[in-house]
Amino acid sequence: MLLVKLCSSFLVDSSFYSLQFSRHEPGVTHVLVTGGAGYIGSHAALRLLKESYRVTIVDNLSRGNLGAVKILQELFPEPGRLQFIYADLGDAKAVNKIFTENAFDAVMHFAAVAYVGESTQFPLKYYHNITSNTLVVLETMAAHGVKTLIYSSTCATYGEPDTMPITEETPQVPINPYGKAKKMAEDIILDFSKNSDMAVMILRYFNVIGSDPEGRLGEAPRPELREHGRISGACFDAARGIMPGLQIKGTDYKTADGTCVRDYIDVTDLVDAHVKALQKAKPRKVGIYNVGTGKGSSVKEFVEACKKATGVEIKIEYLPRRAGDYAEVYSDPSKIKKELNWTAKHTNLKESLETAWRWQKLHRNGYGLTSSVSAY
Amino acid sequence: MLLVKLCSSFLVDSSFYSLQFSRHEPGVTHVLVTGGAGYIGSHAALRLLKESYRVTIVDNLSRGNLGAVKILQELFPEPGRLQFIYADLGDAKAVNKIFTENAFDAVMHFAAVAYVGESTQFPLKYYHNITSNTLVVLETMAAHGVKTLIYSSTCATYGEPDTMPITEETPQVPINPYGKAKKMAEDIILDFSKNSDMAVMILRYFNVIGSDPEGRLGEAPRPELREHGRISGACFDAARGIMPGLQIKGTDYKTADGTCVRDYIDVTDLVDAHVKALQKAKPRKVGIYNVGTGKGSSVKEFVEACKKATGVEIKIEYLPRRAGDYAEVYSDPSKIKKELNWTAKHTNLKESLETAWRWQKLHRNGYGLTSSVSAY
Repeated sequence: MLLVKLCSSFLVDSSFYSLQFSRHEPGVTHVLVTGGAGYIGSHAALRLLKESYRVTIVDNLSRGNLGAVKILQELFPEPGRLQFIYADLGDAKAVNKIFTENAFDAVMHFAAVAYVGESTQFPLKYYHNITSNTLVVLETMAAHGVKTLIYSSTCATYGEPDTMPITEETPQVPINPYGKAKKMAEDIILDFSKNSDMAVMILRYFNVIGSDPEGRLGEAPRPELREHGRISGACFDAARGIMPGLQIKGTDYKTADGTCVRDYIDVTDLVDAHVKALQKAKPRKVGIYNVGTGKGSSVKEFVEACKKATGVEIKIEYLPRRAGDYAEVYSDPSKIKKELNWTAKHTNLKESLETAWRWQKLHRNGYGLTSSVSAY
Repeated sequence: MLLVKLCSSFLVDSSFYSLQFSRHEPGVTHVLVTGGAGYIGSHAALRLLKESYRVTIVDNLSRGNLGAVKILQELFPEPGRLQFIYADLGDAKAVNKIFTENAFDAVMHFAAVAYVGESTQFPLKYYHNITSNTLVVLETMAAHGVKTLIYSSTCATYGEPDTMPITEETPQVPINPYGKAKKMAEDIILDFSKNSDMAVMILRYFNVIGSDPEGRLGEAPRPELREHGRISGACFDAARGIMPGLQIKGTDYKTADGTCVRDYIDVTDLVDAHVKALQKAKPRKVGIYNVGTGKGSSVKEFVEACKKATGVEIKIEYLPRRAGDYAEVYSDPSKIKKELNWTAKHTNLKESLETAWRWQKLHRNGYGLTSSVSAY
């Protein structure tokens, strides 16, 4: 039984709880997945486990869910496949202990707070959690000779570019603390890699949607963070009747239908990009890639797809623009196609939202309560 | 006796040693001077003490010198004037304890590693020491309601601007980890100040030279860091015969005499700017100021001034350009003149270098060994 038992003393303990793997096993790549109890991290862990990697998840459970780890552990119960360690990456001593007791081959660093709105309210939280904690990860990797890093970055590092689509050469001028903190983390990684033989892959995600197609994993934000949430969450809340309807803020943008345009990337495609990045990472090389579909969809299109995916007629209220939103953001994903042979396969919004809706129905209260489809 | 006793156990102790002040004293401003055992920080502490402020120095002594604190303590032995606390700002618990046990009115945050060359070799050290540690200072100030911050920034945050002089509106495009780490710290401070009632002054120094005119305090870099050192150190090493001569790297820059041009600011003027900034800091206001003379001096002019100040004929070797140097950097200091009524008074290079030379002669081995002028 690899999974730690969830009990109150465990959660309040400032140290971490670890169930050790045996040391490095030849021929098996052992990947540390930080934030592996979160939305994207858990999907990445699932994919890595399917591909026969060994996975250690480190998560402080501030945003992630132990329920996601539990599901992964039930899917991969064999000893030595999946390990969960409860730790905060800001605790350098704890992180050092984890690296001392485990022989990692690579790190996928997902752990991060990730709400733009929240970042403007609590900037220090973001700089601490994203910038300083990435530095702790790098310092510990350097101290222990772990030389492959796959880093979760974001299109928010570009800010509001003048021209679309966004390539990896588009100037990065982030406009909120979330984007700035991620840009700082990128800069630190890049400067460090110059003097080392690290293999670095930086993936800049566009707007991530969807869930594990089998409905086992999904996005389960804390209810208190709903106000900062993403459009998919708002649509589903409306479809489920938790909210009376959906507010569309701004219909006078310079876009085809007047609503904001974004590039929605399915989480299954996103984690596929991570595995390809891991497999193609080379010492002394840095790869920076946009991960998007290359196609923009408007908020109206998104909501229409959500209506079809859920079968629910969502009530829409049109409001003036929200401060800080920009009209149009979509990627040029040609570099990742050329260099990593990756393209987005799940480019039908409705189908991606169906996977997320399946998760919603199976897990009415996120990971807190599992109910069957019929019960819903 | 306020000064801590220097003993080996003290230096290896990972916690800190503190001699507490009594709590907040009405009418007396209590300033935390981080890095107050260092070159600029110790001069600032001296000036604050002269102006009747209470001063607490926090320093990890990695670059600073306990000898500087000792001199300050001998000058201001009265109880409640000067306190020294040995602590590392990366240790958030220690910093929190310091703020719990002291009622600071303001923080002057000098503590930082500050060699461009070293920063390219050890970037993580710079991001940790400058960016992450500034975040710790801010978080702790926020937690304890300390609302005035004077921050030491640098012209290195501007990188290589296309036009001179540099104003505060010149785009910041730093080109080395030192400049980038300081820019990140500035950005974090600015984002934080948006949601708070903090009073923030950011001072961007140009090239600091000179010493306390009475020869008590000066620049005393670690010998092992000589290779990263500044031009003044190299000149004095040549004048003292420690080095056979001085190497001037690059004589074909697009400047009047072909050597690099910099804006040299006397440390006495610089700390005057800090006191003025402290006195004019206002809640919910951010002031960003260049601190320079507004006048550029070439390396050749600098060396000539150094020859005159020391009375020594320094042997010069001309070499090709050094990678990473840029031709010309000097400030437009009109904003600080207008808003803080500050101007550089010590703009004669030879006179500034005479103060530094006096320090060199009185302290042949920095703070490690004090000798008289005649002994030299």
